[in-house]
Amino acid sequence: MRRQVVLFGDSITEQSFRQGGWGAALANAYSRKADVVLRGYGGYNTKWALFLLHHIFPPDSARPPIATTIFFGANDAALSGRTSERQHVPIEDYKQNLRKIVLHLKECSPTMQIVLITPPPVCEEGRHAYAKSLYGENAMKFPERTNEVTGQYASACVETAKEIGVFSVDLWSKMQETDGWQKKFLSDGLHLTPDGNAIVYQEVIKIFNEAGLSADNMPLDFPHHSEIDAKNPEGAFQQKCF
Amino acid sequence: MRRQVVLFGDSITEQSFRQGGWGAALANAYSRKADVVLRGYGGYNTKWALFLLHHIFPPDSARPPIATTIFFGANDAALSGRTSERQHVPIEDYKQNLRKIVLHLKECSPTMQIVLITPPPVCEEGRHAYAKSLYGENAMKFPERTNEVTGQYASACVETAKEIGVFSVDLWSKMQETDGWQKKFLSDGLHLTPDGNAIVYQEVIKIFNEAGLSADNMPLDFPHHSEIDAKNPEGAFQQKCF
Repeated sequence: MRRQVVLFGDSITEQSFRQGGWGAALANAYSRKADVVLRGYGGYNTKWALFLLHHIFPPDSARPPIATTIFFGANDAALSGRTSERQHVPIEDYKQNLRKIVLHLKECSPTMQIVLITPPPVCEEGRHAYAKSLYGENAMKFPERTNEVTGQYASACVETAKEIGVFSVDLWSKMQETDGWQKKFLSDGLHLTPDGNAIVYQEVIKIFNEAGLSADNMPLDFPHHSEIDAKNPEGAFQQKCF
Repeated sequence: MRRQVVLFGDSITEQSFRQGGWGAALANAYSRKADVVLRGYGGYNTKWALFLLHHIFPPDSARPPIATTIFFGANDAALSGRTSERQHVPIEDYKQNLRKIVLHLKECSPTMQIVLITPPPVCEEGRHAYAKSLYGENAMKFPERTNEVTGQYASACVETAKEIGVFSVDLWSKMQETDGWQKKFLSDGLHLTPDGNAIVYQEVIKIFNEAGLSADNMPLDFPHHSEIDAKNPEGAFQQKCF
């Protein structure tokens, strides 16, 4: 059976197969080598993600994924007392939930490569402009997320990854290294533009390569067409498939 | 287990998760509803595809795909006696091979929705310009594919679909309804631009909708985040998952 790479996360994962999306780019890179499986849940935080964990990653699976990205935090970091309060998860709970997710995956497969991805930075102006485009003057006056608080969740995510010995992508920091990240990488102050998606793709592929999952080093599932002898095609297929 | 839609074909399928690709667009449309599985084999014709058939679609699978697109013919239609001769498959064999593929899938699952897609039209000038960009003055003088012959394969594909009672997309005809299809839809006279990918996506989605596989009518796998009561999240998950 084909090996699987699972993308587990919130809307930024759910949207990762849109035009220019990082999930689609991964699926393209692993074409004929591994299936990239989309498990993105818009609006979800780590607390709600826990309810899905045993369904998406059954403990007794005969073929657990070879790698999983875990990409939550943008909703956990929504501020208490503001319009997105219902999505808020206290930072210590966020860390604990990430730990639970990773430990479950490790139980499913001790060899699975796990990558925690921090939430991207937040552009508060971009969020406000987006809210105004939806609700006009009724748009929230106070931000429902701030870049500062999301940064604390990003640090918590990186720390947790270190503590439990898995990979992490510090997307929050990485994106802010580029001038104009607010519009270059974010479409509405939170979700990703194609350029923002490209950063996620590059960072995840870099880690997969480090982790021994380079697509270039994986065998093709079946012969490359140039290896097939038109007069005796059976030859190439006998060698590779049977 | 999640339902699957398999995309089985040649390079035009293999490249369908590139930027603007029709496969990625399908995966996005069926997010949280069905997994779109990429089985594209660059350079393959229907004769070689037969060697993969029982591996990709094992007859005893407990969960066969709910739908499969079969998208071959661009290589079968390569001309005998020209530079891509090794990929050529006589038109009667092409029909017979398509039939074998469909009959095998019907055996795997009598309820599977099957869509045959014809090869796209060929722009001979575009192919020649592409060959010159690779080989300069050594580029082939005679086309390795012509639009006319590819059109015969497209008709054969549509006929075969009718004879065995499965859906088809006549991509060859559909694309040529638009002025300037040669550059608008084809990047090198044969493979698809993002606009060309959009046509494939639209035509396939139209058929899936007709066939009762509209993503809009399929249930979400887990509760939408707006249905989750932040104070009692268990409620939403008990109802949907357990």
